Amino acid sequence: MVKNINHIAVIVSDIEGSLAFWRDALGLELECVETVHEQQAEVAFFPIGQGKIELVRPTTPDSGEARFLAKRGAGLHHIALEVSDLDSMLARLQSKGVRLINDKPIVAAHGKKAAFIHPESASGVLVELYQLD
Amino acid sequence: MVKNINHIAVIVSDIEGSLAFWRDALGLELECVETVHEQQAEVAFFPIGQGKIELVRPTTPDSGEARFLAKRGAGLHHIALEVSDLDSMLARLQSKGVRLINDKPIVAAHGKKAAFIHPESASGVLVELYQLD
Repeated sequence: MVKNINHIAVIVSDIEGSLAFWRDALGLELECVETVHEQQAEVAFFPIGQGKIELVRPTTPDSGEARFLAKRGAGLHHIALEVSDLDSMLARLQSKGVRLINDKPIVAAHGKKAAFIHPESASGVLVELYQLD
Repeated sequence: MVKNINHIAVIVSDIEGSLAFWRDALGLELECVETVHEQQAEVAFFPIGQGKIELVRPTTPDSGEARFLAKRGAGLHHIALEVSDLDSMLARLQSKGVRLINDKPIVAAHGKKAAFIHPESASGVLVELYQLD
């Protein structure tokens, strides 16, 4: 039911400055930079194979991502795994006693369904589940 | 030159306990659990699409991974990107002023060539470059 690593999200304080590494030095293709109002963030995507690296710059001081940046600095924030059927995966996880941040799907970028698993249940990792179709 | 997200490494204190989430709840296939003496760690791999999630349990108290675990607890540790030509990528990164942990390839699991980029140059992310052939 888990099909793919969809993206790896990295919190940064400065998108432009970060391009010097990811785009100019490492040579990744920059797909786009856009402001996502619902997410209170500016984001940049770099496709790699079937997945992407996503840079996230918080645009308000009171989002979870902004608090992460203030506390820990730039770095790895979460991983997103593509699942074929998010509703049934969430039901399965709940039946196994996994702690969810979203027990019902939320609307993520581009209208896709997503839900977050609490790091407490996932080896300290913030895991996003993501359904593409 | 960057071809794929090869793996996402997660530091854990207990491989067996972590299987309850990654294998039993999320339903990932467990490829193997093995002790890698060179890495001073027990590792478990879960293939997802073209990539893998790797759980790493330090087996000595004095490795970098053990210090990470003691300081920050379980969680995301590094990402590994597959490159087609590691030597030329390292030369390119050095020419761009990127700080490398390994300026020459080291031998990683299964005899593959690898090198780490310092998080200082990579938005706070520990990035491993990995050449498969």
